[in-house]
Amino acid sequence: MYSFTTLIQIIETLGILAFAFSGFVEARRKDMDLVGVFTVAFITAFGGGTLRDLLLDRRPLFWVEHQEYTLLVFILAMVVTPFMRHLRFAFSEKMLVTADAFGLGLFSVLGASLAKEAGMPLFVSVMMGVITGIFGGVLRDVICNEIPMVFRRGQLYATCAFLGCWCYLLLAKVHVPEVLSLSVSILLTVIIRLLAVRFNLRLPA
Amino acid sequence: MYSFTTLIQIIETLGILAFAFSGFVEARRKDMDLVGVFTVAFITAFGGGTLRDLLLDRRPLFWVEHQEYTLLVFILAMVVTPFMRHLRFAFSEKMLVTADAFGLGLFSVLGASLAKEAGMPLFVSVMMGVITGIFGGVLRDVICNEIPMVFRRGQLYATCAFLGCWCYLLLAKVHVPEVLSLSVSILLTVIIRLLAVRFNLRLPA
Amino acid sequence: MYSFTTLIQIIETLGILAFAFSGFVEARRKDMDLVGVFTVAFITAFGGGTLRDLLLDRRPLFWVEHQEYTLLVFILAMVVTPFMRHLRFAFSEKMLVTADAFGLGLFSVLGASLAKEAGMPLFVSVMMGVITGIFGGVLRDVICNEIPMVFRRGQLYATCAFLGCWCYLLLAKVHVPEVLSLSVSILLTVIIRLLAVRFNLRLPA
Repeated sequence: MYSFTTLIQIIETLGILAFAFSGFVEARRKDMDLVGVFTVAFITAFGGGTLRDLLLDRRPLFWVEHQEYTLLVFILAMVVTPFMRHLRFAFSEKMLVTADAFGLGLFSVLGASLAKEAGMPLFVSVMMGVITGIFGGVLRDVICNEIPMVFRRGQLYATCAFLGCWCYLLLAKVHVPEVLSLSVSILLTVIIRLLAVRFNLRLPA
Repeated sequence: MYSFTTLIQIIETLGILAFAFSGFVEARRKDMDLVGVFTVAFITAFGGGTLRDLLLDRRPLFWVEHQEYTLLVFILAMVVTPFMRHLRFAFSEKMLVTADAFGLGLFSVLGASLAKEAGMPLFVSVMMGVITGIFGGVLRDVICNEIPMVFRRGQLYATCAFLGCWCYLLLAKVHVPEVLSLSVSILLTVIIRLLAVRFNLRLPA
Repeated sequence: MYSFTTLIQIIETLGILAFAFSGFVEARRKDMDLVGVFTVAFITAFGGGTLRDLLLDRRPLFWVEHQEYTLLVFILAMVVTPFMRHLRFAFSEKMLVTADAFGLGLFSVLGASLAKEAGMPLFVSVMMGVITGIFGGVLRDVICNEIPMVFRRGQLYATCAFLGCWCYLLLAKVHVPEVLSLSVSILLTVIIRLLAVRFNLRLPA
């Protein structure tokens, strides 16, 4: 399963980059110093996956097995932080929401995939995916004293992860190749989330 | 131990219903949408037991082993949410406190029982019970931006779970039948909690 | 490794005392009752180490293996709480910060040491140490509705634990005796933290 492992690592790296970036943006808006920026980025990027690994009893934890992930976020925090000061656009709500949408899609579908691999029943796999996708962002927002996006103004959030995970599990059920079912489901999640923000889509209260 | 397993499942189901209901009430008061309601109910109902299973290293997690629990909360959220809109009384503080009291009693005594089964020492079993009982409600209140009940206005809360767990462990020590010692201790916890709210019982500051 | 085990227990006991004391001070300032004081002290003292044990998959948890730790905090809460009322000085910000600095130093260096023992790679060991050191205090501050010290006003906090953990791992690498490398690194962390508060040392924003 060499290619599957590689695929996981690519998805994880992209998800970590997306969530770490959202952490940078949020921490910078709160005028945190370098360590604050790194800590928030670290917690956002690794929070969801760590909870997933604890719940699924997967050891070693994904960021212990891949020390380079933590180093990546550390180096990014040191390189990006002074650089970002000069990039006004990077602080916009839009950048934050977009980075967060990619993190959400990548981590939730990957979470559902790993839960399925671990032999979890269908509905539990979906919930594991949703938890993996939203937990890092919830921690970021709680630490930065914001109401977590998942509960904010009712725009579709967890619902996007929920749909993406079902999409993946159904595609996997009918034996669509792994690369395809993962990519399609991740893109679906990201697109629904961005459309929800753009057109202010909500569930009825 | 067929009957013991059945007993656990009955207690768990009742505790999940009680905590999920308290989650519905709290989430509805905050005008959350369906997914918000489900998420808060899910976290309230499964938070305490999940932490218990992580601390005791019990696998699979209780809601992974019993997929029907998560489905139950999901279906309830879909059925109850629109229905609750028309039931004024359901939003009252009293309903919330009562449902929470039952969840507290059921989960804390069950937590102490499972910790004892796992061979934990006496005082640790009590603490495990208290943690199991209060953690779901603490998460619910933190998410909904309320000061957790356990710290609110000093009415007896954790103390009720503390007494209930000691009661259970002492009854179990003198070989009172499991069904009896569980029921008595759960009822004791619920009654002390409701009396504490009714008569505003507090510990000295 | 008799002496190493004893050494760990001494460090853990001191760290628990320091963090529990900081929990007492914080909870008393919020006018919590006895159970509130105990709960906050308990969470502060055991939060970091519990997360460490979960992440490193160390069982039994350190406070399950040593039931006396939980009893110690319980008895302290009962003995110290009424006594503290008459000690004005004990409520000062200075006492809180000092106790917290010792807890930070003791738990972070011990965390790095246990992570190294568990065969974690270098950078991961440092992060485990930092997490162990700061998590209890973060929980204490979140519960008491304060912005966590680690994010407050930018005075060096996590950075002190970070430097202390690197110091320990480097000393251990060149085979400095365990007692010496632990003590030096713990003291280094505490001293940097106290100097940071005294002279308002900050990282650039």
